[in-house]
Amino acid sequence: MSNLEEAVGQLKYDNDGLLPAVVVDHESGKVLMVAYVNQTALLETIRTGKTHFWSRSRRKYWMKGETSGHVQEVKAIYTDCDADTVLIEVVPRGAACHEGYYSCFYRRLDETGRWQVVAEKLFDPDEVYGKDGK
Amino acid sequence: MSNLEEAVGQLKYDNDGLLPAVVVDHESGKVLMVAYVNQTALLETIRTGKTHFWSRSRRKYWMKGETSGHVQEVKAIYTDCDADTVLIEVVPRGAACHEGYYSCFYRRLDETGRWQVVAEKLFDPDEVYGKDGK
Repeated sequence: MSNLEEAVGQLKYDNDGLLPAVVVDHESGKVLMVAYVNQTALLETIRTGKTHFWSRSRRKYWMKGETSGHVQEVKAIYTDCDADTVLIEVVPRGAACHEGYYSCFYRRLDETGRWQVVAEKLFDPDEVYGKDGK
Repeated sequence: MSNLEEAVGQLKYDNDGLLPAVVVDHESGKVLMVAYVNQTALLETIRTGKTHFWSRSRRKYWMKGETSGHVQEVKAIYTDCDADTVLIEVVPRGAACHEGYYSCFYRRLDETGRWQVVAEKLFDPDEVYGKDGK
């Protein structure tokens, strides 16, 4: 087993073999998205230098940007004290969110207790993805 | 039901009633930690203005800083496109990590495939927590 396989194997995955990956913009430091990786997706992310995840809803692997072209180039990978989360610093090529926003965290809880959209779309998702997609 | 209870209830919790909360420094934007909230912990976070979580390992509520004094004052709460993650912007009073680091993400995967500590401790955890604690 390589060092890398050992490092990836040391992380603490949940009962489904997954852990959350927080993706941040290498330059601004802003959180772009949170998705899930298993060992295979994480190794593929490291091997290719592009973020790969496991979709819990679709039960399949996906590469960010595989449809939209908005790939994320990996600059660094961190883990936390409990080794049950990874943080991936990336250079984003385009928007992170399949809804068309730079970051998936485009809704803020306002003082009246409602989620408010606080960002502007960078693209029209229907044009990029058709009527579905990620 | 208040707007706030409705907004918190709209989020998509997992089978254990939890979702991950990414805590970032309001000023630097840096990711400090990832922990888990259920509806009660999230409402308590909003009500008190201090971060509260559910510990999966200890199966109990905890407030960040309850032992160390390193509380996190909430500035804003966001959710993502899938409404299954929250991002909490905070003003951290002290270090986020119970290991003594500013951020829990203090280990980076290096080019040889090993996790390397890349930050310096701000405090000695044994002095702050005794021999265990969070």
